[in-house]
Amino acid sequence: MTTIYRDTVKAEWVDYNGHLRDAFYMLIYSLATDAFMDGIGLDETGRRMRHRTLYTLEAHVSYLREIKQGAAVSVDARVIARDGKRIHLYLEMFEGDEEKPVSACEQMLMHIDSSDAPKSATFDEDVAARIDAFAVIAVHEARYARRVIGLPVRAGGASFQA
Amino acid sequence: MTTIYRDTVKAEWVDYNGHLRDAFYMLIYSLATDAFMDGIGLDETGRRMRHRTLYTLEAHVSYLREIKQGAAVSVDARVIARDGKRIHLYLEMFEGDEEKPVSACEQMLMHIDSSDAPKSATFDEDVAARIDAFAVIAVHEARYARRVIGLPVRAGGASFQA
Repeated sequence: MTTIYRDTVKAEWVDYNGHLRDAFYMLIYSLATDAFMDGIGLDETGRRMRHRTLYTLEAHVSYLREIKQGAAVSVDARVIARDGKRIHLYLEMFEGDEEKPVSACEQMLMHIDSSDAPKSATFDEDVAARIDAFAVIAVHEARYARRVIGLPVRAGGASFQA
Repeated sequence: MTTIYRDTVKAEWVDYNGHLRDAFYMLIYSLATDAFMDGIGLDETGRRMRHRTLYTLEAHVSYLREIKQGAAVSVDARVIARDGKRIHLYLEMFEGDEEKPVSACEQMLMHIDSSDAPKSATFDEDVAARIDAFAVIAVHEARYARRVIGLPVRAGGASFQA
């Protein structure tokens, strides 16, 4: 299994629609990414000793199904790709034992030297090795990755395209 | 101006990197979208009276610059496009009076009939008119819209593509 994080939908994460607010899916993913960092040597001690951390450059969340207060959720994480300084991470969120995800998220993460003004940095060798040993998913198998947001352009009718 | 929301970065939104956590940029955008809803007739009263609301289908956040606790932020919102049931909304976040955004977000929002099991619904005429009267931005001018997340595929070297 590639489950790296589990949580329960808290009352304060639910909005006027009676379901988990969009931003708090992202919070669960953010906490899952913290768990991913723990697994590759960038846990709290690793960050402090190495003066290294990860920053999020971009995140794209697909909301597939609403979930309610008290729902038990788990997050699976797999690496789509990395280069010397960046990781393209793919995450899916599940409710209980269901097979279909309630949401998916892809993130581009940048490795940062935090010893002075933050700047991008090459992964330490042992961190790179741990990333390469992490579960992977081919980009064409990551169903909700590399998506573009947009409406089809239509001529006339009630719709418009600015 | 198209500023629809202002906030201040709270202590509980700051992570171990000493800056606003990625998920809380999304919370600020989510609250800005609530303000957008207020402006198109889907405020709390409108939602209750009409049995209509908006659900987020997708959100894509670009993190351009880190911001710290206490930072005053504002969010501009413009509509890229809509059809009968969906809105493609573009948001940018600014710190103080700066001209360059610290972040950008695009969202695909679906109009929902909440009178029974949630299902997509056509906009009421007055709501559609208010959306069409809202500030617009051409998709090619929305610098951080329609982006795809991904690393360039490279042959050999230390990088890999799963």
